[in-house]
Parts: sequence; C-alpha cells; structure tokens
Amino acid sequence: MTASGRPLRGLLDTEPVVATAGVSLLADALRDQAVEVTEAEWQPPLPGAERDLARVMGDPRRVAANAVAFERMTSAHAALVDVVPASEALGLERGTFLHAGPPLEWDRASGPMRGALIGAVLFEGLAASADEAERDLAAGTYDLEPCHQRGAVGPMAGVVSPSMWMYALHDDVYGNDAWCSLNEGLGKVLRYGAYGPEVVERLQWMTHVLGPILRQAVRTTGPIDVRSVIAQMLQMGDEGHNRNRAGSLMLLRELLPGMITADASSSEIAEAVRFSGANEHFFLNLGMPACKLATVAAEGVPGSTVVTVMARNGTDFGVRVSGTGDQWFTGPANTPEGLFLGEYGPDDANPDIGDSAITETGGIGGFAMAAAPAIVRFVGGDVPFALRATRTMYEITTGEHPSFQVPILGFRGTPTGIDVTKVVRTGILPQINTGMAGRVAGTGQVGAGLVTPPVECFRAALAALAAAVPA
Amino acid sequence: MTASGRPLRGLLDTEPVVATAGVSLLADALRDQAVEVTEAEWQPPLPGAERDLARVMGDPRRVAANAVAFERMTSAHAALVDVVPASEALGLERGTFLHAGPPLEWDRASGPMRGALIGAVLFEGLAASADEAERDLAAGTYDLEPCHQRGAVGPMAGVVSPSMWMYALHDDVYGNDAWCSLNEGLGKVLRYGAYGPEVVERLQWMTHVLGPILRQAVRTTGPIDVRSVIAQMLQMGDEGHNRNRAGSLMLLRELLPGMITADASSSEIAEAVRFSGANEHFFLNLGMPACKLATVAAEGVPGSTVVTVMARNGTDFGVRVSGTGDQWFTGPANTPEGLFLGEYGPDDANPDIGDSAITETGGIGGFAMAAAPAIVRFVGGDVPFALRATRTMYEITTGEHPSFQVPILGFRGTPTGIDVTKVVRTGILPQINTGMAGRVAGTGQVGAGLVTPPVECFRAALAALAAAVPA
Repeated sequence: MTASGRPLRGLLDTEPVVATAGVSLLADALRDQAVEVTEAEWQPPLPGAERDLARVMGDPRRVAANAVAFERMTSAHAALVDVVPASEALGLERGTFLHAGPPLEWDRASGPMRGALIGAVLFEGLAASADEAERDLAAGTYDLEPCHQRGAVGPMAGVVSPSMWMYALHDDVYGNDAWCSLNEGLGKVLRYGAYGPEVVERLQWMTHVLGPILRQAVRTTGPIDVRSVIAQMLQMGDEGHNRNRAGSLMLLRELLPGMITADASSSEIAEAVRFSGANEHFFLNLGMPACKLATVAAEGVPGSTVVTVMARNGTDFGVRVSGTGDQWFTGPANTPEGLFLGEYGPDDANPDIGDSAITETGGIGGFAMAAAPAIVRFVGGDVPFALRATRTMYEITTGEHPSFQVPILGFRGTPTGIDVTKVVRTGILPQINTGMAGRVAGTGQVGAGLVTPPVECFRAALAALAAAVPA
Repeated sequence: MTASGRPLRGLLDTEPVVATAGVSLLADALRDQAVEVTEAEWQPPLPGAERDLARVMGDPRRVAANAVAFERMTSAHAALVDVVPASEALGLERGTFLHAGPPLEWDRASGPMRGALIGAVLFEGLAASADEAERDLAAGTYDLEPCHQRGAVGPMAGVVSPSMWMYALHDDVYGNDAWCSLNEGLGKVLRYGAYGPEVVERLQWMTHVLGPILRQAVRTTGPIDVRSVIAQMLQMGDEGHNRNRAGSLMLLRELLPGMITADASSSEIAEAVRFSGANEHFFLNLGMPACKLATVAAEGVPGSTVVTVMARNGTDFGVRVSGTGDQWFTGPANTPEGLFLGEYGPDDANPDIGDSAITETGGIGGFAMAAAPAIVRFVGGDVPFALRATRTMYEITTGEHPSFQVPILGFRGTPTGIDVTKVVRTGILPQINTGMAGRVAGTGQVGAGLVTPPVECFRAALAALAAAVPA
C-alpha cells in the first residue's frame, strides 16, 4: 500500500525501470544480466571531507560571497598598456628569480624548473657556465619567489629575471595590474627547461630588440583591450590556453603597424615581425595576465569558496581561494597525458608545470574546450570529449561568463569561478589543457595534453575554509 | 501466414510501430491521433523530372565522370600571385562592364545592379551625372558581360570596370587563372548598389592608392597559398562566405609587412593598413577566386552532373554544370531571409545577387556552416540549424573535401561537388549564406541571410544533361 492508502496499482504490470546512483558495482552487475539501467550521475562526496563540507556549505556568507567573487571575476577589464623590463615592472632585484606555481626550494625543483633557472642565471650573466649556475642555485645564492607573489604569471617554468621584458596589463574597473613575460615561441625554450646557447641568445635578442620594439608598438597603438580579444577568439576556435591562433592574429593586427614603424633598424624590425607572426602562442602571454586580473579582482571575499589561483611549479600543484586570501593549498602535481612530439613518450613528461592554469581559473582554456574542437589534434581526446569537458565544468563552477561565449553550445557562457565545495562534493576535478615539458633539464617541450589538479589541494582548501567559518 | 509458413507470431502482441515516407499528410494525421510515427526522410523526385532523371542516372559515364570532376575540384591549388588593373588582367576594354551572375540586359536588371553599373560608369568618367549614366546604360551604349565569362568573380552586383584593380590567383596544378575585385568594406558600397560621391571617391582611392600598395605587398611577399588559408579558417569559426574574420586576419599577417614598407607616402600607407585591417571581409575576395579555380578545374567532364557555377545577377539565378560546359541554366532568383541592419526589413531586400555562391559551389560558405556556428548571429537561424545545414548538404554532394574539414563534425570534410541528380532526386536545394542588397538602387546593404537557388535551374540542367546522354 502506498502512503495515500491506494494499492501499488500498475507497478508490476510493466517492465521494471532500474535506476542506480553512486558506485557502479550494482549497475554493472545488472547490465551483465541484460537489465537496462539508468545511472544517476551522483557520487558521494570525497571521503573524509564530509564534516568540512557540511560546515562550509552551511556558512551563511557563502552564497552571497561567491556571487560577489563571480561578479568581480567576470566584470574585471584587461588592457595591454605597456611593455617594460621586469626590474622596472616588478621591482625585481638582481639575484631574485620568479618561478611558476606555489613556493618552491631548489632541492624539490623538477628538471625543467632547474633548467629554466640555470638558463636565467646564465642570461643575467651571473654565472659563466651551467655547472656554476647550478652550484650557486643549489647553494641558495639566489632568491626564488612565485610569480603570483608579485602579481605576475609565467607559462610553464615561468622563470622571470630582472632583465626580461614583461607585458603590463591594467584593469581600470578594480584598479589592478598584472604582468607576464614575452613568449619565446616553441621548441627549445627556457620556459620548457632548455638552457642551451640558442635559448640564452634568443632571450638576449628579446631583451635588446623585441622588447623595445613591442614597447614602441604598444605605446603607439594605445591600450589594447585583451578581454575583448578573448571574447572574440572563443568564437574563432581558440580556447586561450593551448590554442591561441586567432588571438595571436588579432594581437598582430593591432601591433604590426606600430612595430614596423618603430625606431629600430629595418633588419631588426623584420626579424621581430617574423618572430611574432610565426608564433601561434603569441597571445598566450596576454591571455594569462588578463585572467590574472579577473581572478585578482575576486580575491579576498570573506566566506567565498571560489578558486582564484591554480598554478604548478613542476613538483606541486597549488590553489588559492577567495575566502582564504593568499594562502596556498598544495598537492603533488599530476603528469599530463596527451600527444607527444617526435620520438618523445609518456616517460619523458615532467609533472604539470606553469601558471597558465590561470586561464582555466578565469573560465577559459580547458573550461572552454567546446569552443575549440580542433584542439584535440594537439592535446588528445576527440571532439565529443572537448564538448563534454566544458559541459562537465558547469558542475563545479559558480556561473556562466557573461562575455566569454561558446557558439556551439548555443552561445552559453563559459563555466567560470571554480567552487571548492562543488569540487569536493562531486569529485569532479578542473580540466586543464597544457603543454608538456621534458622531465630532464635542458630537454624543452615534449608534447601537449590534458591534466587535472590533485584532489588534495581542494581538500586542504576546504579544511581552511571550514576553520574560517565564524562560530 | 508469412512466406516461411510461420504465423505472424508476435506481430500484434506489442504496440504497432508506424513508419511513413514521402508526403507528410499521413504522418500528420497519425500524430493528430497521438500515434507515434517515424518518418523516413525520403521524398519523391521533383515531379515532371522522372524521365530525365532516369536517363541521366542511367548514363554509364556518370559515376566515373563525377569522380573525375570531384577529384579535380578538390585538388586544384590557389595562390594569390599579383594585384593588377582589370584592363590588364582581363583585357577589359573601356565601355565594357562585367557583372555578377548569368547574362543580363539592362531592362531586366534589379535596383542594386543598376546602381552599381551607374556608379561604375561615373567612376570611369564616362558620364557627368547619375542620370546621364543611367540614360546611356538604358540606351545600350555599353557592353555588359558576366564576370564568369572572363574567369572572374565579383561579390554582390560584381560590377567590374577597366580601372578597377583585381586580385590575380593562379592554380599551378591545372594551370588556370582567376580574378576578383578588391573588397570595398561594408555599408554604402558599389557592390550593394550604392553609387553616391563617397562610393565613387572610395573607388578612386582604391585605384590610385590601395591597388598599387597591395600589388607591391604581394610582389614583396611572394605567392600566398589561399587554399591553405581556407583550410585553416574553417578550423577558426569562418565558413568563407559571410564570415571571413580569421581568413582576413591571416591574409593581413601576410600582407601587412609588405604594405607598410611599400613605396607610397606614410599617410597613404596608414590609410591602406587601417582600411584593410578594419575589413572583416577582406578575405572574401580571395576565397571566391580560389573557389573559382577549384570549380573551373572541374569543368567540361563529359557526363558529369557536378555543378561548376552558381551565380546570381539580382534577377536570375544561374548554374553551370561540368558535363554541359559553359551553358547557363537559369531561374528567377529567390529573396534571402535573415537579419536586417538598422530599420531595414524584408520589403527592402533585393532578390539574391552575386557570384559569391561560388563558395558553396566549391564546398564552403553555407555548406560549411557547421564550422562557423557564430554566423547565425549574422544570417539568422540557430546553432542546430548551422549543423543541420552542413549535414544536409552531404545528401546532394559528390564527396567530402579532403582538405576543408569541420572540427565539430569530427573533422569530416565539407560536402563538396553539388550533384544535379541528387538535387532533383531529393528536392534538397543548396544552402547559401549571403549578404542582402537593398532593392532600390543606391541603398547599399540592408542585411544578411539565407537563401536557396530556384529549383528550375536544376531541372533545366538535368534536361540538358539528359539530352546529352549518348543514345
């Protein structure tokens, strides 16, 4: 009898419909017996996190705080306003080096991070050989600091030294600034841990020729609206992390006239134009600080569980959360899986590295894969995977970006503002597209692929958020 | 009893499943009675065409001939090799004007075609006023000829006069050449039938400043592979007819350095760069002749039912077919439906006009809409429509383009090589994306939308193909 007192009429007259939730054991057993099963996509929260989750979910500030963080993240502006040496932009002192990801000591640094630091020491003329540079780095002669600590971001190893030039971006809504180094192109480059003579020579050329030419171009052109370029590139098959073709072309259109008329020799200008035009990731180093400006604007909202930084140093993956300010929550970085260049294979790949996951933190990159189905040719997977990746990210984010739209999803906004509570409750981890650095210092890029953060970051963040809930 | 002698066991034990084909009358009647119906997407051939269809389908040359035409269409190359005045490129004599679409007399010309011809007469200095130009045109003082007759193509009215500059493209596989005029930008422009002083002034500037600068740029840069740009733009949200953003940016990247260093005054160069950079359809006038080179290569294969030209003059829609050479088959042009600029509405739109349907003939444009879902914001429809448009075109084409791929369809090649027999057999008409010209001479562009050819063209082509089948 049902609660209403009527018999279970009809219940057994038709084929039973079976639905399951949680572990797939039961569903699999039924399917083995040719029973049709509908699985509800529900997973229990990550074990051990239930108490923290209940506490944070019950925080009366949470919903409003996340709405504020989301609103700030999606309304921040980002304009390229200048190109300046890091010494000037960040007050970076000789002997201090910035790196990607959360804080790191030399002893725990991975191969590509060590390679990039060695290359930067050589580039700054602080050592005469790689051996000497390595010895001094191991001896703690130099100061290492995360880029994020100075409002900067760096792709892959993300190593920045005082003589390198930086793009300077400004957000005139919230009054923030962010910086990123210039892109070196692909292959044997510092950010992938290569430090041979051709790498250091290219960095010298970037400092003495490219930087000054780009500065003149930006100053001639006037501020360039980077956020608007991101919105457009998502309509043009880019996701802004591993695919930046349209973005790079739009940036070139703005900068080329000013570059070509810059005060420099015609051969220098020709080389700067050729170098910039040949680089499909020319725009990445502007998209990253634009996303940094968005996420910085969302920082420090008490009670907010929105992630404001995801960054990797090649050893650890670190996240920061709006409600807990600049505290890092770390876990061991996973190793990406994907497609390899030439003869390289999975054994050659270093664990996840770089500040570039700021793109996913800001609602693009892996979160916007549906806008860039052609990217599966670079990072692996197939087109349905690309669509599924974006759709799945709606499960763990606060809202849909009002300006970054995905045409193929009917112009739905990208999933933006990762919510720590949603990650822990569903067990769904943020999807990151990334380049892969060689494990061994000096190798360079070995491929590109897909990766997720370790779940530990989110558990640790949740614990800190729980501890901060007012009694 | 069934043929095997067993009773119709089980047939009446379950709910009946109803399938219908052909006219929807029966399906609709069943649905009205709440019966679930599965409709097979089969339509009878166009009435009256059955006999021609049977004759052409039975032509033993057809399959092989279409394979040859398809192979030629998809393997032709297209490189931008020069920019030259039409007088030089096409041997165009003073007093002769080219126009879009099939042959046309002044008496039957629509408003925008008349407006463009008036403007071209004024631009050539053959008349002192619009009235005088119109009087002379009506009196038959000038010779009118289709662009296609000289191996050229022109968007919208497609009017070309001897002093206009043309892009010159070359196919080094089949040794063909094709030409197209320079794009004037949007709004009040000759190709949309405007002929006011600002239109003629712009044409003068294009002849005296832009053309020579572009020529120097192309000669400095060397041949530009236009076919490769098309392949890439389809991965970047363009379909190459009404959306050319990525293509235009790629073209700019190639041409800007040569433009900026051209031998001209710095203010002329600045204006040429600004004009070209601001034009989202900069590439259209290269994509069109590239498709012309592809379709020209497929011409003249005896027995082939592949369409080699679709073009409209604002009054008639004309097609040409491989197996029937340069014979035109025409019908009254339909009026596009879509989205309108400003205060304009459906009553302001002229019937379909322009040679730009060469893009669809070559397997892009409306046939590649799935690659460019964002285009629905310009031409109307929604994203599922864009996907459906491309999928439907596979029903009436010979094959899938090996180089033009659509990422969202799992990198399937675009539907290429419209087959007259398939159009007549299915009743499915080619999907064309297009700009809309104002009905009244002098108006300019009023919108952009979707249109199909009149079925008469295909019936007439089929009849000619049937007549040419060897007894």
